[in-house]
Amino acid sequence: VDTEAGSVISSMPMRCLSQSDYTVELVHGVLDPSISPLPPTIGGRHTLIVTTPSVYSLYGLGLETLAKSRDADITIHVMPSGEVNKTIDTVLSVCRAASEAKLARRDLFVAFGGGVCSDVVTLAASMVRKGLPYVCVPTTVIAQVDAGIGVKGAVNLGAKKNYLGCYRPPERVLVDQSLLRTLPEDEVRWGISEIAKICLLRDAELFELLVDNGPALIATGFDHPFDVGEKIISRSIELMLDELEPNCYEDQSLRRLVDLGHTFSPAIEELSGYSISHGAAVAIDIALTCAIGVQLGLLDQSSCMQILEAFDVLRLPTSSHLCTVESMTRAMESTCAHRAGALNLVVPTTIGCATFVEEFNAIAPSTLETALEFLALRTVRGAQKLSV
Amino acid sequence: VDTEAGSVISSMPMRCLSQSDYTVELVHGVLDPSISPLPPTIGGRHTLIVTTPSVYSLYGLGLETLAKSRDADITIHVMPSGEVNKTIDTVLSVCRAASEAKLARRDLFVAFGGGVCSDVVTLAASMVRKGLPYVCVPTTVIAQVDAGIGVKGAVNLGAKKNYLGCYRPPERVLVDQSLLRTLPEDEVRWGISEIAKICLLRDAELFELLVDNGPALIATGFDHPFDVGEKIISRSIELMLDELEPNCYEDQSLRRLVDLGHTFSPAIEELSGYSISHGAAVAIDIALTCAIGVQLGLLDQSSCMQILEAFDVLRLPTSSHLCTVESMTRAMESTCAHRAGALNLVVPTTIGCATFVEEFNAIAPSTLETALEFLALRTVRGAQKLSV
Repeated sequence: VDTEAGSVISSMPMRCLSQSDYTVELVHGVLDPSISPLPPTIGGRHTLIVTTPSVYSLYGLGLETLAKSRDADITIHVMPSGEVNKTIDTVLSVCRAASEAKLARRDLFVAFGGGVCSDVVTLAASMVRKGLPYVCVPTTVIAQVDAGIGVKGAVNLGAKKNYLGCYRPPERVLVDQSLLRTLPEDEVRWGISEIAKICLLRDAELFELLVDNGPALIATGFDHPFDVGEKIISRSIELMLDELEPNCYEDQSLRRLVDLGHTFSPAIEELSGYSISHGAAVAIDIALTCAIGVQLGLLDQSSCMQILEAFDVLRLPTSSHLCTVESMTRAMESTCAHRAGALNLVVPTTIGCATFVEEFNAIAPSTLETALEFLALRTVRGAQKLSV
Repeated sequence: VDTEAGSVISSMPMRCLSQSDYTVELVHGVLDPSISPLPPTIGGRHTLIVTTPSVYSLYGLGLETLAKSRDADITIHVMPSGEVNKTIDTVLSVCRAASEAKLARRDLFVAFGGGVCSDVVTLAASMVRKGLPYVCVPTTVIAQVDAGIGVKGAVNLGAKKNYLGCYRPPERVLVDQSLLRTLPEDEVRWGISEIAKICLLRDAELFELLVDNGPALIATGFDHPFDVGEKIISRSIELMLDELEPNCYEDQSLRRLVDLGHTFSPAIEELSGYSISHGAAVAIDIALTCAIGVQLGLLDQSSCMQILEAFDVLRLPTSSHLCTVESMTRAMESTCAHRAGALNLVVPTTIGCATFVEEFNAIAPSTLETALEFLALRTVRGAQKLSV
């Protein structure tokens, strides 16, 4: 910063330092009072456990039992679920619940739910009394490998998706694979979409394991084959944290490999009125990105086909009638605003590696058109290929 | 944290680090396009300058001129002012203004106003796109030496004062003493109350300088004697930053000397329906704290009288009919919740030094009663002593 020397009289420096490490732990029996690591984490702190209606209907009794087993004052708050409720209003309702539960400074929030729940709790915890600690117990695949293990929380402000948010590390993340057993098939599938993303970026072998076992894991909520499911979750978390760690506040760079699948998908979700879920939109985004990658000579045709066919096997959609040259151009523009002017589109160069396309202008409308047509035609021609 | 070894399968550490230093600068001519350091700070960034109606009526033209002198897209947003508008709703209205002004990531907020303005902007800037930088140009005494130079921003949630907030360092703080010239006398006086606080904690000589020159500085908006005013502001900022620096996220300790005057004052403000301003409430709190200090044998009677008489000279109130044993006991309880169970009442031991009373129980109702009676009687007896 360049200042006119004459006008500055004196300058007093202020040094601020904040540091916070945490661990993501694979655990068994998070709702079993005899072995659960949750009660010792809570300790004597007054705690607001935030969950959603569907999770409460399945695990509410377990949570209530766990709560009663402690001396501490534990309140369970059920917030509305779904992307349409990922709003600042829901955040404020959680803040009010914290006030009613009389949480004091250094008391605790627990987010016991999927990605929307952890997003809402992260932001609420960051604001109440200027910041209380929180613990995450993610209950969906997407939250266990992605949304619920990082430091970001964001919610929508009116139509502006993820416009308000924060970076705030959880105190601890407890990942219990057995919570996935009760998930609807599609919920598991959308989580697999984020796992596919991280595999495409970093690990070809894991991608193969995922495609081979995906249908069974989707059908059983990661229960069969359990060991393979555990390996996939554990390795995905490892890769994810590895990507996030050097830049977890995104102050080093806005070029993030984990943004693969997250350039076109926000617009697809929005245009569908959130009837297309995040994981499905990510799959469509990755397919489109791969097709663009082929056009730009960054990805070979056969790797692209292998990825698309893998998506077919996993029954992940690869196209949508909402994707037009116009809507996807607007999606790129909106992404640029969020990435300080750069597009930074993440494009696989082969399975397990990716690169960045930094410039908006590098992707001509004709490139976008050819890619979209290819994907749309492919869907029409094969019964197995999904379009939404 | 103690966990049942059997239930944790594996543990993956995540290291987060965030660091941010900034400078508080005394400057001349912040609204003079030829020498202002504000335009070079803004650079080419799209900027939302947030101000309040009274500041806009005085300096709006200057701000508009400054805005037009830049190539960058600068929008001026006038938010409602006053403690009653220090709410999450006002924060969200500023966020919406940022969205309408199309601020992109790494664009800029400027808080051009008093403490409420910088509180609101700090929280809005911390949330928009998960955090944009902001610059403070404090326009009141209280903001120049206290509210506008630290890293905290907090607003009220319904009746819960300062319930929602954050720690977020500004990019830069530009303090222009000449902006104080247009302040109403009482506004200056309430700022002097916070200056008195920091003097009582750290600097007996500065306290003397303040009392000797206070009436003239109040009458002229820190214009006469200008040099003395500059010295007082500069030294107060220096002392304040010195106190904040080692613990600016309050993660090291909730024992903060700068909390002198901030144990009973939130309740006094609330009970008055915010008709008693923050600075006045701080003065009443300090007076009560000194009287308690005498009761507890921590402060000698003559120093206490010297402080109270200085307040008389500065026409700062030392009592209020809103302060009863009951209301002040509730105020201490509420403070304890905010300081993780400890009271941590800061009590001067002489002019320039202070200590902590950690325990709620150390202050018996009879101690409180005697202190309140002494202050009330003192006010009744002297025409010069103020009660509100």
